[in-house]
Amino acid sequence: MTYCLGMLLESGLILMADTRTNAGVDNFSTFRKLHVLADGPDRQIYAATAGSLSVSQSVISLLQEDQLASETGEHRRCLSEAPTMFRVAQLVGEAVERVGATVGEALERAHVDASVELLVGGRVGEGPIKLFLVYSIGNFIECTADVPFLQIGETKYGRPILDRALRHDTPIPEAVKIACLSFDSTMKSNLGVAMPIDLLVMPAAVGHAVLSRRIERDDGYFQDLADRWADLIYDAASGLPAPPWMD
Amino acid sequence: MTYCLGMLLESGLILMADTRTNAGVDNFSTFRKLHVLADGPDRQIYAATAGSLSVSQSVISLLQEDQLASETGEHRRCLSEAPTMFRVAQLVGEAVERVGATVGEALERAHVDASVELLVGGRVGEGPIKLFLVYSIGNFIECTADVPFLQIGETKYGRPILDRALRHDTPIPEAVKIACLSFDSTMKSNLGVAMPIDLLVMPAAVGHAVLSRRIERDDGYFQDLADRWADLIYDAASGLPAPPWMD
Repeated sequence: MTYCLGMLLESGLILMADTRTNAGVDNFSTFRKLHVLADGPDRQIYAATAGSLSVSQSVISLLQEDQLASETGEHRRCLSEAPTMFRVAQLVGEAVERVGATVGEALERAHVDASVELLVGGRVGEGPIKLFLVYSIGNFIECTADVPFLQIGETKYGRPILDRALRHDTPIPEAVKIACLSFDSTMKSNLGVAMPIDLLVMPAAVGHAVLSRRIERDDGYFQDLADRWADLIYDAASGLPAPPWMD
Repeated sequence: MTYCLGMLLESGLILMADTRTNAGVDNFSTFRKLHVLADGPDRQIYAATAGSLSVSQSVISLLQEDQLASETGEHRRCLSEAPTMFRVAQLVGEAVERVGATVGEALERAHVDASVELLVGGRVGEGPIKLFLVYSIGNFIECTADVPFLQIGETKYGRPILDRALRHDTPIPEAVKIACLSFDSTMKSNLGVAMPIDLLVMPAAVGHAVLSRRIERDDGYFQDLADRWADLIYDAASGLPAPPWMD
């Protein structure tokens, strides 16, 4: 399993991904699922992946090596030439389709789930920061202000706190805290999602540095947050009245 | 979709089930999913169902009409003769198998999901109150004190509050409140789970009356609880510190 969360806020983009992979419960490991697709002066593009590891790694490598372009000789298939984030999402979708038609079909013949999903976010030039969710077929949706987040993988346990606390105008440090709470709830209920967690923050203001951080198992802030959250939830529930019709 | 929750506590049994059914999003309706299988002086047995409505209704009717027994002339296949709750769970499992082999196979030929799950709880004679989860194949597990609840249907959104707040020694009114919070979280995130909610409470002390109640859409207590919970969660999250490494 996997949990990846993307937030597109007034103040910037946040991507967060756990690192646990598993084939059955007796074979688990740690792999980075938050990748840099482009990091130049004119574009910063990032992707988080969920699903079959062999498929998602192939998709990322194919994009990083610009194979879509080199096979066809078409510069317009280069991430480094894509004029907008929409075009970037199209190219990621093409890469997903390409891998699905080769590795994916072979896996499906062996009855192995070959599905994959990606969160793709970033900025091209001085265009707006965008965030997309690319599905297994290669189609995609774009994050908008009404619900300022997208999730892939184990999405349910960590969703209630997002529905209740996150808004498009939430400041970045507050949003990172909410993202940590969302990951805490998910890790409490699904062993297939685990530390360390990779975090990437891209401020909306052009020229502000991108923050990239790995939150380790022994991160003091995260541990303290999880403990205090558990106490707060317990106390909040305890303080509410029992049903009057139970008397 | 559906959400059913069973709690087996020191102080008694709680069963709760929503009433929304749907075939696609454009065809939804209200059906009771919390059923009385036996209500006599020597036994009270209840079941909550999730999954294919035609399959689960057939299972319930087959048990209520004691068809397992009348077809074979075997009294030991009567719920009304079952000497223990374990035997009751076996008979429910047999009914699930029987319907699966007839209606279920026909549905699967038409590529319609025919799976069904049941929570079965109650007491036979002066035996202990028990709670079982019966799966689509007819096999089942029994609830124990370590994790004093079982869920079927849309289980994920409502689970974190149970993991954090419910214990085997939680008093019944407190547990009903926690169950309401679990349903509130589920209904906030999945339109396939909706009011009214049916509730059944069987106190452990022999001779205490069973409480049966339908919590309607306009229930003042539930509405107030949901509002206050939303505020408490929001305030609790707001009060926690942002990550120090975001500065």
